[in-house]
Amino acid sequence: MTAFAELMAYQRETEALGQIAGRLGWDQETMMPLGAAEQRSEEMAAIEGVLHARRTDPRVGDWLAGAQAPDAAGQRSLALISRAYGRNACIPGRLAAEIARVTSMAQGIWAEARARNDVAHFLPTLERVVSLKREAGQALAAGGFGGGDVYDALLDDYEPGATGAGIAAIFGRMRPRLVALREALLGARHVPEPLSHKFDKAGQLALARELASAFGYDWNRGRLDTAVHPFSSGSGNDARITTRVSETDPFNCFYSTIHEVGHAAYELGIDQAYLLTPLGAGVSMGVHESQSRIYENQLGRSRAFTGWLFERMRETFGDFGVHDADTFYRTVNRVQPGFVRTEADEVHYNLHIMMRFDLERQLMSGALAVSDLQEAWNARFHADFGVKVDKPAHGMLQDVHWSVGLFGYFPTYALGNVYAGCLNKALRANVPDLDAALAQGDAAPATDWLRENLQRHGGLYEPAEVVARACGFAPDEGPLLDYLEAKFQALYGL
Amino acid sequence: MTAFAELMAYQRETEALGQIAGRLGWDQETMMPLGAAEQRSEEMAAIEGVLHARRTDPRVGDWLAGAQAPDAAGQRSLALISRAYGRNACIPGRLAAEIARVTSMAQGIWAEARARNDVAHFLPTLERVVSLKREAGQALAAGGFGGGDVYDALLDDYEPGATGAGIAAIFGRMRPRLVALREALLGARHVPEPLSHKFDKAGQLALARELASAFGYDWNRGRLDTAVHPFSSGSGNDARITTRVSETDPFNCFYSTIHEVGHAAYELGIDQAYLLTPLGAGVSMGVHESQSRIYENQLGRSRAFTGWLFERMRETFGDFGVHDADTFYRTVNRVQPGFVRTEADEVHYNLHIMMRFDLERQLMSGALAVSDLQEAWNARFHADFGVKVDKPAHGMLQDVHWSVGLFGYFPTYALGNVYAGCLNKALRANVPDLDAALAQGDAAPATDWLRENLQRHGGLYEPAEVVARACGFAPDEGPLLDYLEAKFQALYGL
Repeated sequence: MTAFAELMAYQRETEALGQIAGRLGWDQETMMPLGAAEQRSEEMAAIEGVLHARRTDPRVGDWLAGAQAPDAAGQRSLALISRAYGRNACIPGRLAAEIARVTSMAQGIWAEARARNDVAHFLPTLERVVSLKREAGQALAAGGFGGGDVYDALLDDYEPGATGAGIAAIFGRMRPRLVALREALLGARHVPEPLSHKFDKAGQLALARELASAFGYDWNRGRLDTAVHPFSSGSGNDARITTRVSETDPFNCFYSTIHEVGHAAYELGIDQAYLLTPLGAGVSMGVHESQSRIYENQLGRSRAFTGWLFERMRETFGDFGVHDADTFYRTVNRVQPGFVRTEADEVHYNLHIMMRFDLERQLMSGALAVSDLQEAWNARFHADFGVKVDKPAHGMLQDVHWSVGLFGYFPTYALGNVYAGCLNKALRANVPDLDAALAQGDAAPATDWLRENLQRHGGLYEPAEVVARACGFAPDEGPLLDYLEAKFQALYGL
Repeated sequence: MTAFAELMAYQRETEALGQIAGRLGWDQETMMPLGAAEQRSEEMAAIEGVLHARRTDPRVGDWLAGAQAPDAAGQRSLALISRAYGRNACIPGRLAAEIARVTSMAQGIWAEARARNDVAHFLPTLERVVSLKREAGQALAAGGFGGGDVYDALLDDYEPGATGAGIAAIFGRMRPRLVALREALLGARHVPEPLSHKFDKAGQLALARELASAFGYDWNRGRLDTAVHPFSSGSGNDARITTRVSETDPFNCFYSTIHEVGHAAYELGIDQAYLLTPLGAGVSMGVHESQSRIYENQLGRSRAFTGWLFERMRETFGDFGVHDADTFYRTVNRVQPGFVRTEADEVHYNLHIMMRFDLERQLMSGALAVSDLQEAWNARFHADFGVKVDKPAHGMLQDVHWSVGLFGYFPTYALGNVYAGCLNKALRANVPDLDAALAQGDAAPATDWLRENLQRHGGLYEPAEVVARACGFAPDEGPLLDYLEAKFQALYGL
């Protein structure tokens, strides 16, 4: 066997074991009996240990040195394995183990602190996480990752090729237009009302399944369950989704479902030839988020699709206080400032991200001390949203990310929105009769176009390249902002 | 770290990975989308490969050579690791891989053959499996396992310490009394009628959950789902069960549930100090089956417990054609000869096992050729059951065991019945008011006694020893036969 064949066979087993670890995570959030939690943490540690040992095995380095790829997909696989191996090689074993230990513990402490609104309880742990992740970023930067920049070296894990400076430039151009739009909408005369009825849970879940089908979700290779925080899980031919149900907020159930279908559709749409190879999963968090966002927002919250959803909700729940499809469209797309990122509307969402991006870059550079984070958060929130944070659970304790060391992750959400804006522009240009299908509850033409032009490539191209290939132009924030302004100005009668 | 501490830390990770493989099997039978099957087989192969490499790692041999256990549990752990390591060391890697490959393929071929009633389709594969397992048995026997006997060396995997000769002696004593009982019952004047109504599935599943609770199943550390073939899965604090539902046969659902609760109760009852150690799982298939059988039969099919079940079925399903608890007790315990082992009543069940035991011993010794198996099976079935096999799916193709190489497994079912008979005798003597509790739908006093006297020990003692310790006497077939004769003679008015 050649070095390439040996490496790929080895990698295939590693990918399969990675899928198992993911499935175990799915089980933990959906099926696992509560009393199994402690045992499960040992099981997870054992499989993560196996994966870590395989990913840092010196044989991988030897194979990489001698491997000759037979084709472009093989070359790209080698490049991805090499990048991951090189990154792991930068991090000393002691540091990797310490990060694993501290972040695993930190998540529990964060959850306690959030429940008690007790920032002080969390700060010493966050200090430790920030310090360790900065050390990791420095080690990676010293190894040449992220062009030698600490934050960029971390960002590289989630959005290869992106840089903090590049993202800051995009955000700098987005910000004034989003703020202007926000001000205009909040000053509008006719503001939509929220829903005020109750919606039975079984009916919501039945309709959620229908929505997943409408977006072409492949039930033969997936399933829908409920979880506290909706997520999707798994690659290849087993990509499962979850949603949650609140009696007073059916949109949470429906749009979480559509969002997760977007993630799963990406995984399920990848060329079967890439199964269990480094190309067999979505290429970055940003591109992943572009799929969930375009499904959820540009398609799912469109006038055409909400028209169909309105009818299905009337048939399922009877009269729920909204009497025409135009009003329903306004209800779905109600804009209002709120404390919580995950509940934000399309206009406010990116403002949440910009704030986290600026703060975490400062934390990593050392310009902001962890002890000053709460004050910085609250001041920035007041400046950006015009409201004072009422409690830490609505402020700097709201997200799990920093506790588990995910520095560099937040901006991928906004990049996903930017990519979704570009893809939506190209999709609309290439599938001109899409609204007619959406109005019938059929989003399959959109999935077909996205699969053919983006999803099927999996990890074959770098993030910005795969989006550019699908769109026919280099992605920037313009299409997203044009879309948001056109949609919301019309919707609010401005 | 001492060699003992190093070995136990390593073993703990191996046990955790073994739990993960088990959970993956559970997922496959209960949750996995069908389209994921092929990918899953690669995932399973990857984790099995990791487990095999760990179990045969030469470091285990080194640690074993230098390890000093600090206490009796530690000594027993070393003995169990040493036995497993020694067995693996006997089997050449080539043979282990070939057995894995052939049996994995054989299961599919067996399923096809059974569906088509086509013995010829299965025979070449079975020849291969028999030949490979005989080779494995010979290698183990040459290494001193099973006292040098090929069949016993295989049996040792499922029931350590048991021998073919010992089991043959027990079966030899059981046979005439079982045959005499069977003849008397089949000649009785008043034969119970089977159920003839339909029972809705949701009602069956709700009652199944109630039955599991009645037997003390710990929902905080387990869950109930449906599967094509009911099974239990997992050790430690995550022991899940499954059942199935047929509208015309609610007893299948109810007694499968109670049976699997017995298996799970054993795992959940083990001392928490043994979690993820070699002592942290049931000690043998026979002892495991003793728990499922005593729950299902001696307790679940008792007059006292069926009295409660009768009332609950009436409350759940309304009038289903049985009008008093005594008649219901007779219906539950209806005796009749049938082709299929898994559907057999308490009297016929062991006759099925004896037949398989004799045939598989002859296959392993070479006294019976695979090509003559069907004729031997059919002749023996006719002699033992008085009925001619009508089709191979009701004959030698009915069980999956031989296709996957489980030679030496069948007798553990009958050993489980023998142990259950002994444990029931001791349980009744030690918990005299048990029937009063069972009549209220409360089997917890039985679970309490079994946990305290048997389950909690996990793998600490050899199978026959742990049963003897619980009972206060060395186990033999006497109590089982006394119980069967007393129960069924009274039930049939003999």
